[in-house]
Amino acid sequence: MKAEIVAIGTELLLGQIVDTDAVYLAQRLAELGTDLYFKTTVGDNLERATWAVRESLSRAEVVITTGGLGPTQDDLTTQAVALATDRELDLDPESLRRIEAFFASRNLPLLDSQRKQAMIPQGAQAIPNPVGTAPGFILELEGKVVITLPGPPRELQPMVEQTVIPYLRHRAGAGVIRSRVLRFVGIGEAALENLIEDLIEGADNPTIAPLASPGEVRIRLTAKAADLESADELIAPVEREIRRRAGQWLYGFDEETLEQAVGSLLRQAGATLAVAESCTGGLIGHRLTNVPGSSDYLLCDVVAYSNQAKKGLLGVPEATLKAHGAVSAETAAAMARGARQVGGADYGLAVTGIAGPTGGTPQKPVGLVYLALAWSEGEEWEQHQFGGQREDVKLRAAQAALDLLRRRLLRAEGEQRDG
Amino acid sequence: MKAEIVAIGTELLLGQIVDTDAVYLAQRLAELGTDLYFKTTVGDNLERATWAVRESLSRAEVVITTGGLGPTQDDLTTQAVALATDRELDLDPESLRRIEAFFASRNLPLLDSQRKQAMIPQGAQAIPNPVGTAPGFILELEGKVVITLPGPPRELQPMVEQTVIPYLRHRAGAGVIRSRVLRFVGIGEAALENLIEDLIEGADNPTIAPLASPGEVRIRLTAKAADLESADELIAPVEREIRRRAGQWLYGFDEETLEQAVGSLLRQAGATLAVAESCTGGLIGHRLTNVPGSSDYLLCDVVAYSNQAKKGLLGVPEATLKAHGAVSAETAAAMARGARQVGGADYGLAVTGIAGPTGGTPQKPVGLVYLALAWSEGEEWEQHQFGGQREDVKLRAAQAALDLLRRRLLRAEGEQRDG
Repeated sequence: MKAEIVAIGTELLLGQIVDTDAVYLAQRLAELGTDLYFKTTVGDNLERATWAVRESLSRAEVVITTGGLGPTQDDLTTQAVALATDRELDLDPESLRRIEAFFASRNLPLLDSQRKQAMIPQGAQAIPNPVGTAPGFILELEGKVVITLPGPPRELQPMVEQTVIPYLRHRAGAGVIRSRVLRFVGIGEAALENLIEDLIEGADNPTIAPLASPGEVRIRLTAKAADLESADELIAPVEREIRRRAGQWLYGFDEETLEQAVGSLLRQAGATLAVAESCTGGLIGHRLTNVPGSSDYLLCDVVAYSNQAKKGLLGVPEATLKAHGAVSAETAAAMARGARQVGGADYGLAVTGIAGPTGGTPQKPVGLVYLALAWSEGEEWEQHQFGGQREDVKLRAAQAALDLLRRRLLRAEGEQRDG
Repeated sequence: MKAEIVAIGTELLLGQIVDTDAVYLAQRLAELGTDLYFKTTVGDNLERATWAVRESLSRAEVVITTGGLGPTQDDLTTQAVALATDRELDLDPESLRRIEAFFASRNLPLLDSQRKQAMIPQGAQAIPNPVGTAPGFILELEGKVVITLPGPPRELQPMVEQTVIPYLRHRAGAGVIRSRVLRFVGIGEAALENLIEDLIEGADNPTIAPLASPGEVRIRLTAKAADLESADELIAPVEREIRRRAGQWLYGFDEETLEQAVGSLLRQAGATLAVAESCTGGLIGHRLTNVPGSSDYLLCDVVAYSNQAKKGLLGVPEATLKAHGAVSAETAAAMARGARQVGGADYGLAVTGIAGPTGGTPQKPVGLVYLALAWSEGEEWEQHQFGGQREDVKLRAAQAALDLLRRRLLRAEGEQRDG
């Protein structure tokens, strides 16, 4: 079943509001197995709104309009749908009764402009609005349907759940879409795609789509099937093959963040963490503490921006700073040891580097970052060279530091299991 | 000048991401005085993307595409624009050089898929991407223009600011629109609007638009005039009147952030800062260190999540924690004194509170936050009750803490000037 959305409202084209209806409808339609191919946004203009509805109807079986159902002169969606489908407007007595009751119960006078909201195209079925006054409607045409809904999400959403979804489910017969997102860290988009190129090429059901964002890559698997179980069965073997090839970089699924994944590993291990940050400036602590309950494993985070703080708060030896500089593997390791010690934690994680835009030298350029991790039986460090602006360097360094800890926790878990 | 947006990306039609580019572009186009009449969203499908670009070009003078410029097979926007405008693709040597340099500087191999990103339609002008690898381009046709931009907002936005806006301004010829944003903290939207209600009502040129976001309120003044100087002259008296009424809450202008404003005040005063965070978890440090050069005044930030860390790292007395609890004015003040002392800083700023969702009690509910500030001649503390989710509480608490420091620095500046 092909669907399109026509969003009507000048405020959308002025950037005054975000079209959350579109995101919500897109998700619900995808779950229903409906293909959404186009979404058109137009202002409160009768001619353009009429054109958009007519154009969408020429391509799709289901056209959903949102917005423009209120009492003001700007609200002309019903008129546009009537024009696009060559229908007259009729008064819907049941909708008028509801509108009258709504105003009577609030002791408010009923204006003509509000009465106008009970007018719907001939032959349409009104969709009751349990929250506001404007009804929506379903207008069936030959083999096609227009579904018209109000714009406010708190009105639209219950109408979709109570009336539109059951209607579409009935109309479509069976079928669902299931999406699963695999989240990777420590590998770039192109490199990951290279590893699974052959899988992507032939992929049809599920489809395989890589998506990149700073510091991580996601792979989305989307399957269509008669029911959710069958969709899951289509996804499972493809997911297994991707994990076989790239599992070492996989940190989580769907909406999981890296800080949640690291938090879960710490919790499973019953381990505690102390962090020492320089160039990331508190971002690692901020991210870890966005996870509810993180106080169970995160004991402290020392942002030691000055050398004085590195020495005083973390016990980095003056000699280390003198011999190797604040941005060095040796200082990172000393910070990690110091954090672990002052925090009384199982793991000490440290970052030091040059976030830029100033402070770089030919030997130590902007974006150079050292990470270190200290634990009871050892320590390790890594050198990275990140690109981008100051905030990108901070983000990528925080991502890499959390990933360093993630990999160590996984190894410790494996050793414990094997040993 | 009529414009349209064509947003390309299956993830938009599946509802997996919100189209923030559309909101941003709509706002910027509105400020330019450009009329945005349609926005079309299509998936990663060559045929439908080509159709959408061609259709938009038939109606509008300016067509802006967003998304679909990455290195993967899904990314087919450039191809769609070429097809829609009957152009071949050509290699842009300058873009290839930039892509090669990007990978060389990271010691990464350059794949063919990345080289593909340097291909743009014949006759197009590349738009450099200062953040990522994919260039955008401007393709001029007879009386029309297609502007193609990458999807990630952190890539798109600088390209719009640096290249697209100046291009469109030049294309539009005469007349300018000037916007000035006044930024307020410590006052709510309704309260601020109340203070300037009479100004907003009659406002025409400049218009006065209040905009609220968590923890702050902005007022945007927008004037249209023949040139920038005349526009500024229209804005100046209105701005002066708003400052007269609400100047005590005004912290900055346009894109200035509160952390930048606080940073400038610290720099002017030649003062240094040490921070102690509990419930904000590093967010204050993260924000302060987003400002280049912040190492000049920010010495350290101790995120003392556990009581052990509050005692060990900040010297909060055991007796204070026992008598008043970790979330109390007394503990906040002790943390501020401790931060100031261990950091050797002029100011010590501390936050302790309950970010939630758990940890609240009837006496100390979720959202209860204490702030404290210590300096050589005194200390002060504040109690706040914030609403919202965990991340909202963190954000509002960080905002209030930075504002506490801002007000103190302004008073100190005033006293010095008067004394």
